[in-house]
Amino acid sequence: MIQKAFTVVGGGPVGTLLAISLARHGYKVGLYESRPDSRQANIYQGKSINIALSDRGWLSLEKIGVSAEAKSQSIPMTHREIHAVDGDLSSLPYGREGDAIWSVSRSGINQRLLDIADDEANITTHFEHRLADVDFATATATFNIENDEQLIVEADYLFGADGAHSKVRRLAHDLAGFSHSQTRMPQSYIELNIPAHPDGSHQLEKNALHIWPRKDFMLIALPNPDGTFTCTLFMNESGNPSFEALQERSAVELFFAANFADAMDLLEDPIDTFLEKTAAPLFLVQAYPWTFNRKVGLIGDAAHAIVPFYGQGMNCGFEDCAELDALIAELDHDWSQIFPAYEELRKPNGDAIAELSKRNFVEMSDLSGDSKFQLRKKIEAKFSNQFPDLWTPLYSMVTFSPDIPYADALRVGDQQNIIMEKIMALPDIENDWDEKHVMDKLSSLASNVFGAA
Amino acid sequence: MIQKAFTVVGGGPVGTLLAISLARHGYKVGLYESRPDSRQANIYQGKSINIALSDRGWLSLEKIGVSAEAKSQSIPMTHREIHAVDGDLSSLPYGREGDAIWSVSRSGINQRLLDIADDEANITTHFEHRLADVDFATATATFNIENDEQLIVEADYLFGADGAHSKVRRLAHDLAGFSHSQTRMPQSYIELNIPAHPDGSHQLEKNALHIWPRKDFMLIALPNPDGTFTCTLFMNESGNPSFEALQERSAVELFFAANFADAMDLLEDPIDTFLEKTAAPLFLVQAYPWTFNRKVGLIGDAAHAIVPFYGQGMNCGFEDCAELDALIAELDHDWSQIFPAYEELRKPNGDAIAELSKRNFVEMSDLSGDSKFQLRKKIEAKFSNQFPDLWTPLYSMVTFSPDIPYADALRVGDQQNIIMEKIMALPDIENDWDEKHVMDKLSSLASNVFGAA
Repeated sequence: MIQKAFTVVGGGPVGTLLAISLARHGYKVGLYESRPDSRQANIYQGKSINIALSDRGWLSLEKIGVSAEAKSQSIPMTHREIHAVDGDLSSLPYGREGDAIWSVSRSGINQRLLDIADDEANITTHFEHRLADVDFATATATFNIENDEQLIVEADYLFGADGAHSKVRRLAHDLAGFSHSQTRMPQSYIELNIPAHPDGSHQLEKNALHIWPRKDFMLIALPNPDGTFTCTLFMNESGNPSFEALQERSAVELFFAANFADAMDLLEDPIDTFLEKTAAPLFLVQAYPWTFNRKVGLIGDAAHAIVPFYGQGMNCGFEDCAELDALIAELDHDWSQIFPAYEELRKPNGDAIAELSKRNFVEMSDLSGDSKFQLRKKIEAKFSNQFPDLWTPLYSMVTFSPDIPYADALRVGDQQNIIMEKIMALPDIENDWDEKHVMDKLSSLASNVFGAA
Repeated sequence: MIQKAFTVVGGGPVGTLLAISLARHGYKVGLYESRPDSRQANIYQGKSINIALSDRGWLSLEKIGVSAEAKSQSIPMTHREIHAVDGDLSSLPYGREGDAIWSVSRSGINQRLLDIADDEANITTHFEHRLADVDFATATATFNIENDEQLIVEADYLFGADGAHSKVRRLAHDLAGFSHSQTRMPQSYIELNIPAHPDGSHQLEKNALHIWPRKDFMLIALPNPDGTFTCTLFMNESGNPSFEALQERSAVELFFAANFADAMDLLEDPIDTFLEKTAAPLFLVQAYPWTFNRKVGLIGDAAHAIVPFYGQGMNCGFEDCAELDALIAELDHDWSQIFPAYEELRKPNGDAIAELSKRNFVEMSDLSGDSKFQLRKKIEAKFSNQFPDLWTPLYSMVTFSPDIPYADALRVGDQQNIIMEKIMALPDIENDWDEKHVMDKLSSLASNVFGAA
């Protein structure tokens, strides 16, 4: 068999994992990244940007045969640490005992994957190659390289793993039959920083994702191994309060003091940073098709850019890679079948996690604001413990149940929602919630919908 | 009361009609068009481009007080004239006796509306002003004008009526909370021409829209007052047959001879034209919101670019204007209410006509190909004649029933579809269709769904 060649556009975590997967299946892979090699040039300007990785991500890495070594450099977050306006702390576990989501350094995992790719004889990696054009019929790519020169790269197949702003996807805009949509959220965000103690330890509880939920806006903080926390302030672009409304130093000072008093001693120059930075937009992109002429495909954020509120972006991208990896074996390298099967398998799940991630802003930012919402979580957790076969809470389905496709989690979650609305409408539920008749009612409703046929 | 000012971007038919409506309500209107004045410079290169106008369009013009004079320069098309592959002709009426859709010259109606606008003291019209920027908070617009200069135009409100490629809408892409989607159809199109007889008469039946339906592709022809027909060939961009596949003169000749034999003597240089022209793409655009800060709005194709298969594009844009016109009176010039009311009223109808226009390609291109489809139309027409209160065929709801919003037509059409599928599944329907038991069955099904409660 002649060795077939792939061009992978985008050397981020998803593109690099895809390249590794393809190389281990025997393909010749050219991996092209527009930026410099982050292992040599510090393109992150010293910032620790972290992302949440959970069971889907880890399992996908394992399936492709990338050791879970990265896990040892990550920080498990077993619960949400909720910071009330008055500084009161409360703890909300993510799942059952032993469940955790993991704070991972984006650059760290990317660099680790690039190192692994370097060890693969089938992969050649090219930095500072900016995609200029793709021929979707032939999978030929044109890159802009140094000295205003262009490089034309021929291959049998091409994948765009070039992220939320994917150039491959934007080039597809002109193809007949292609649809795309972009939704900008009302919220934008800026990143802030909490430095480490002088001894390198964390200033806040390390094994938690910290949330200052303020309903229309929120601050969150994720721990880094170096003792710092990367914080993100999500807030509306306009209205009150908003990035647009908060322009004056005095107003910003008042805003932070009123809402994040307990964080003010910890944050590094929050007022100056807020005033200096331009808030970054949050948007979702959906596209269809994901594959073109059985020659070119989209994967990861390039196919389904989502918002960060479910912490699933990289998990979903890694899962794309793992499921594609399995299809290569299953369909015996027949790419005329693999492309459509990949698209059919993954597109509904990309759509579902987009919807789930959009909805989860409300859930995160309102966590402490609504006692009924808290009570509902408590009832669900209790019921799920008693009847694990009948009920897995939506968050756990998405985060800790990699066997449940996102699309199924969304559908089941909507059914659970209808049931829980009935339960929460019971008279005196605030007092009765722990009583037998409530669990009986829930059990009967759930059995009707989810019980064995 | 201080006279409030509007900027209207786009001097096409919809923008000009909107300007007339606003001016007659007492507003000062600046109407800005990027192209030269078509009444002075022939920007259409001598081509007659026509569009279908039907009851919604005419009624909307009347509601705004623009006389139906244009109707006298239009050609009523009472039926579809179907050209079979073997040259056989058959006739399919559009509606009942007296119903017609009208072939209107796009430039003619635009120029007539511009003339009316010129007579309005409140309107100043500016050609060759290309929009560069909009401040969505203040409705201030910046235009590029001659000599690389920029003109800044302040106003109280601004409407983008700048068509399918709307610059106003594209500038809104960066606004928080804005969503947009674009769907490119698999089909593209080129325009061809059938010249008039030397005496200026038409070479084909004048009062018809001619269709050469070939399932995956079709040719259509609309009559012009000067005796010519403007023809459009719709075909897939790729596949077989397709614009991509038909590159060689010999192949194109074979294709035309095999599919449009009876048109070959009439068409003006079809092979050369086909080989010279680049097929134009067909796409739909949806956007939300349509209004921004109670200051800026989108209208017509700028808000809802659709495909031409239902002949409703300009009708829908004119209806936007007429309904906005009514809201100005109803809500007594309170634009803090008019903008949201306009959006709430029109967005569902824009979405519905987008969906209907997309679906209608199959209906048009398969008109003669499927005898069951023809039979279904016949049964519906007969039933509708007997029970006009129970059943108006979808085409008639969209085209001849301006009191029925597009969204209702779509919904009712889907319900009719379910019923007709049951009727068409009756055994021996091909022979029995005219018998009483079929009409009784249809009557009972329709009464259940649409009958008086």
